[in-house]
Amino acid sequence: MKKIRVGVAGYGTIGQRLADGVAFQEDMELVGVADLAPTLALRALRENDMIGANGVAYKLYLVDGADKAKFDELGIPVAGSFAELCKNVDIMLDSAPGGVGAKNKENYYEKYGVKAIFQGGEKNSVADVFFHGYANYEKGLGQEYLKLTSCNTTGLIRAVDALDRAFGLERVAITIVRRVADPGDYHRGLTNALQMDKAPSHQAVDLMTIMPHVEATGILVHTPVTHGHIITVLATAKDGKKITREAALEVFEAHPRIRVVSIDEGFLGNASLFKYARDLGNRRGDMYEIALWKDSIVESGDDIMFAINIPQEAVTIPETIDAVRAAMKMQLTREEGTARTNEYLGVGKFKR
Amino acid sequence: MKKIRVGVAGYGTIGQRLADGVAFQEDMELVGVADLAPTLALRALRENDMIGANGVAYKLYLVDGADKAKFDELGIPVAGSFAELCKNVDIMLDSAPGGVGAKNKENYYEKYGVKAIFQGGEKNSVADVFFHGYANYEKGLGQEYLKLTSCNTTGLIRAVDALDRAFGLERVAITIVRRVADPGDYHRGLTNALQMDKAPSHQAVDLMTIMPHVEATGILVHTPVTHGHIITVLATAKDGKKITREAALEVFEAHPRIRVVSIDEGFLGNASLFKYARDLGNRRGDMYEIALWKDSIVESGDDIMFAINIPQEAVTIPETIDAVRAAMKMQLTREEGTARTNEYLGVGKFKR
Amino acid sequence: MKKIRVGVAGYGTIGQRLADGVAFQEDMELVGVADLAPTLALRALRENDMIGANGVAYKLYLVDGADKAKFDELGIPVAGSFAELCKNVDIMLDSAPGGVGAKNKENYYEKYGVKAIFQGGEKNSVADVFFHGYANYEKGLGQEYLKLTSCNTTGLIRAVDALDRAFGLERVAITIVRRVADPGDYHRGLTNALQMDKAPSHQAVDLMTIMPHVEATGILVHTPVTHGHIITVLATAKDGKKITREAALEVFEAHPRIRVVSIDEGFLGNASLFKYARDLGNRRGDMYEIALWKDSIVESGDDIMFAINIPQEAVTIPETIDAVRAAMKMQLTREEGTARTNEYLGVGKFKR
Amino acid sequence: MKKIRVGVAGYGTIGQRLADGVAFQEDMELVGVADLAPTLALRALRENDMIGANGVAYKLYLVDGADKAKFDELGIPVAGSFAELCKNVDIMLDSAPGGVGAKNKENYYEKYGVKAIFQGGEKNSVADVFFHGYANYEKGLGQEYLKLTSCNTTGLIRAVDALDRAFGLERVAITIVRRVADPGDYHRGLTNALQMDKAPSHQAVDLMTIMPHVEATGILVHTPVTHGHIITVLATAKDGKKITREAALEVFEAHPRIRVVSIDEGFLGNASLFKYARDLGNRRGDMYEIALWKDSIVESGDDIMFAINIPQEAVTIPETIDAVRAAMKMQLTREEGTARTNEYLGVGKFKR
Repeated sequence: MKKIRVGVAGYGTIGQRLADGVAFQEDMELVGVADLAPTLALRALRENDMIGANGVAYKLYLVDGADKAKFDELGIPVAGSFAELCKNVDIMLDSAPGGVGAKNKENYYEKYGVKAIFQGGEKNSVADVFFHGYANYEKGLGQEYLKLTSCNTTGLIRAVDALDRAFGLERVAITIVRRVADPGDYHRGLTNALQMDKAPSHQAVDLMTIMPHVEATGILVHTPVTHGHIITVLATAKDGKKITREAALEVFEAHPRIRVVSIDEGFLGNASLFKYARDLGNRRGDMYEIALWKDSIVESGDDIMFAINIPQEAVTIPETIDAVRAAMKMQLTREEGTARTNEYLGVGKFKR
Repeated sequence: MKKIRVGVAGYGTIGQRLADGVAFQEDMELVGVADLAPTLALRALRENDMIGANGVAYKLYLVDGADKAKFDELGIPVAGSFAELCKNVDIMLDSAPGGVGAKNKENYYEKYGVKAIFQGGEKNSVADVFFHGYANYEKGLGQEYLKLTSCNTTGLIRAVDALDRAFGLERVAITIVRRVADPGDYHRGLTNALQMDKAPSHQAVDLMTIMPHVEATGILVHTPVTHGHIITVLATAKDGKKITREAALEVFEAHPRIRVVSIDEGFLGNASLFKYARDLGNRRGDMYEIALWKDSIVESGDDIMFAINIPQEAVTIPETIDAVRAAMKMQLTREEGTARTNEYLGVGKFKR
Repeated sequence: MKKIRVGVAGYGTIGQRLADGVAFQEDMELVGVADLAPTLALRALRENDMIGANGVAYKLYLVDGADKAKFDELGIPVAGSFAELCKNVDIMLDSAPGGVGAKNKENYYEKYGVKAIFQGGEKNSVADVFFHGYANYEKGLGQEYLKLTSCNTTGLIRAVDALDRAFGLERVAITIVRRVADPGDYHRGLTNALQMDKAPSHQAVDLMTIMPHVEATGILVHTPVTHGHIITVLATAKDGKKITREAALEVFEAHPRIRVVSIDEGFLGNASLFKYARDLGNRRGDMYEIALWKDSIVESGDDIMFAINIPQEAVTIPETIDAVRAAMKMQLTREEGTARTNEYLGVGKFKR
Repeated sequence: MKKIRVGVAGYGTIGQRLADGVAFQEDMELVGVADLAPTLALRALRENDMIGANGVAYKLYLVDGADKAKFDELGIPVAGSFAELCKNVDIMLDSAPGGVGAKNKENYYEKYGVKAIFQGGEKNSVADVFFHGYANYEKGLGQEYLKLTSCNTTGLIRAVDALDRAFGLERVAITIVRRVADPGDYHRGLTNALQMDKAPSHQAVDLMTIMPHVEATGILVHTPVTHGHIITVLATAKDGKKITREAALEVFEAHPRIRVVSIDEGFLGNASLFKYARDLGNRRGDMYEIALWKDSIVESGDDIMFAINIPQEAVTIPETIDAVRAAMKMQLTREEGTARTNEYLGVGKFKR
């Protein structure tokens, strides 16, 4: 079988993990990654002799404006230009800074006839479809340009879509307790403060774009932590149907990308999950699954309320890989597409 | 008019503020405060020559087990024993550590026939009535022992009770983004972590004790900050009635203990409110009012959702003073009782 | 006695406290404060009917570019323009954002012949003398333009100057554990990270400008807290003289602006001191004194090492008031000048 | 060659990493790990089918008081009792909670004639020698019981010992900016506060135990972060000899366990180093090397001052492996012993 050739634009927090995600797919080939400057991420790759996940060699291509001399000086080998990368791939995963993706599309992807998947930082208009592997896989089939939901929305939709398929939802109201920065971020931060966003949160609005039959709203509070957002969700079924705690739990436990945990087991909060991923020895200490606290599920009238944890650095990787499968028509149904992604990423392994 | 004589047991974070609150009441006399050890709070009082709020001299009484020699050594004058304090008051405000209040009741208050108001750390069984100045003032009239709601519940009920009186509520679902420690706390803390409590949160359960006609549930997340809890509330009216954003806002703006603020004014989060109270020159940098973000109010179907800020150190003081008024039958209605408290504390002054 | 007429440019964190500091001086008159926009600080002043510290009415003047309509809309009374303020004062305390002070000097202070004291954010070249009330008071006598040391340097020099006068120093090496933001700051922050500055820290360099006979260097580490910097100091006396722990402690205990504290008393860190200032009922919860931990003082060979706490919001106020006294020749010696400041601010009261 | 058989007591933060460290040594065999309860760490091991670092199967032995039924229920296979583990090893690495190691020695290690290496939480009296791989390797040769220095002291001594061997030191004065908890810790924490320890810090005292010819003192400040301690060191050479910045840098750059970094490269603080270790794909996101900021090195008179970063979770692993080599006489000199450890752990690889 011919492997799908994939490139990654931007080797930052998301880009590194996209490259790893592709490297784990047996039916994809990571042609290379592109970046502008010799960041810590690239210095780390160099320290590993340019070997990334799964023993795969990562080739580096430079985008316009990059100073190759700086890379030479540090002994970071350069394989070519961004244009050369684009010419050699079937599809690009664009994790460049917000707004750059749209320019890349205009200057490169359209020119070279390469498909592209954009991350949440781009405007929706950059893409033909706003995509989520579980919620609307089929809409992405054969499309040229897809945009992924942001980290919070991706994780949130996993849980909401699962309930919707089981019970039929008409309304969700969410509170996002947002981590304000990633580990290692120095360019943004918050110190001893909670910060409000104006309601409704964009995540609720984005959810409605993907799932237009559900009315969603929500409030977002930034908190000075780095290890995962926590979202509380209140979900209402259609037609006054009641969702019981037991029925909801059953749905969550069946989902490969939802890890049902409990406080009694020792999962006290987002930091326990970060630690657990490190204890697992996962590459970069990452977790692809969202967690859902069993002991947070409560009934409120006929509605169901619960809390989930979103590991912001890695959570969008599986759905992005799904997007490749949809765009390239590698699998034609959400069941087959997501299952293949899960298999190669080891997602849901814990369920066995 | 004869002033009601009030004592305070425990001169900690809450006790200091209760003493100040009493000192501001023109119809109450602060007979004294009681404590066990020469804490920083008492050293600070000594540095001020034992003069507290409003120019009032605070007399110190020692509880059982206190070592008077330590106070003498530091030049902290002692006025007498806890029993002597109890003999000289009409009512005690008990802010001793959780569980000690019940013992004080057994060993002193019952013995000396003195009424008492307990804080949220005691069990409900310590009191005849679980009290909130706005929600059930009349239930406290003439009672011997009252227990206040905790800080979160006190602030929460202000907003929920106001909506309930205006629209008639049947359900609330809350998410508490809890500050984990007070400024200056070293005995508890959380570092770069969010922490889950098992649902439902006790605040939701407590709300139902005070307002049994409302079904309440909720999820609590601890966050590593010190300047105020933030609670999101989803409220549902009875009989399928819709609560509009405008109607809710009008209710909140009319409440003397709710400060309606907005992000655009500069109130970005709980730390802005803490700063604002300091900018006001408020004693101890405290705020008695909860804040409610105007730009957090959103409609969710027929329900209304919004976010409030709870200044945990001072929020229960007004309702505790209300409790004195109810227990001593100083005013016979919630309107009169709370209005007098507000007047002397300067609460709601900003509304004019 | 005719009072010295003082204005304050910029009513932010420092400006508010400068205005308060002047309001406490019986031989100074606060003519007014100037600012650009209706900040939270000005809204708070309005909520207090424009009454500030010590019962003094604060008049507001608007700087160039201010939109008076916005103030009118909020009911914040405006007394006049910045030029009018400058014309009515003997001296301006400039706490405008860094760099604006230099423009104010050029456009106003020089034009209207008004003296000015700048804060640490301005370049040294803006002033005739880089000033510290205890270290070089006499250099400021009668000068037109003085610049204060920054918060860390002001507090540091108090301790270093005291040792220098007692023992004669030749070297200090410092480590600054810096608080990264003030309470309420949302425009800067750090989350779960320590951050390095390039050595030597500017505070060490600034110390040498004020005390050129001492060789100073140091390393600064930013930490995600808001309540006070902590500095460790290693001090070396001239000519191989030993400084004993006892001798150093005696020097520190004699200084009115140094509060000697201990862990055993309950002063566990910077947050204890912030809490203590609030427990004292100090306006805005501020403290003018630095704290010095008695149980941090250790001998290292012949050198002495110790740790101090710098309450960054208020620490420069006394030395700025000293600067007014020097510039206006109100007192001609450091002893008299600083004593008068201390008396009116209540600094060192705890020493009695 | 017969491999040295090693067991690990306690599979917590340190124990997991000791097990990994042994698994990487080609001349050692990890016989098993022992613990009491089915912690998250053991659940994670189970999720990986009990496969740990380097593809090695980790066998679990239960200590006294463990409830085997709980492990059975979770499907965590148990290989035997702690006594059985002790009987099958040449040497135990004891990372049990502080104080338990001493009991293990009494009840097991002495009984079964097995050597043991204790971590910093035990009292010095538990061991024959207080050990550091670089500073006193030869003292550990053939000893029965060794105790490792704590994380801060281990990293500190790497740098101080290197300077001492190059220049001959007589004094160091340190300031420890301590991370207060590890990622995932919920049992301890600090929120918006710096906390002082009484001086001198135990790390300075411990350094003198290992390097008695150097006078050491220091001050420790706890900070609310999780990703690595930062220590500033002022070092003084004997006999008034000057240590230049260049000479010190050369020494540091030659040390395999010291990673010289700079702010300009992007290493802004402890969180950058944590991120870098994750970017490297290191197991658990760990780093064995301390980092030393090139741009923190400054001269102070004849002394040299600099700052280092201590990755507290993993820093003691190499020196503990060194201790096995010394105790078992696998290599007879520090050069050979540390070199072999470094080779198998990949330490210093970045130097090539």
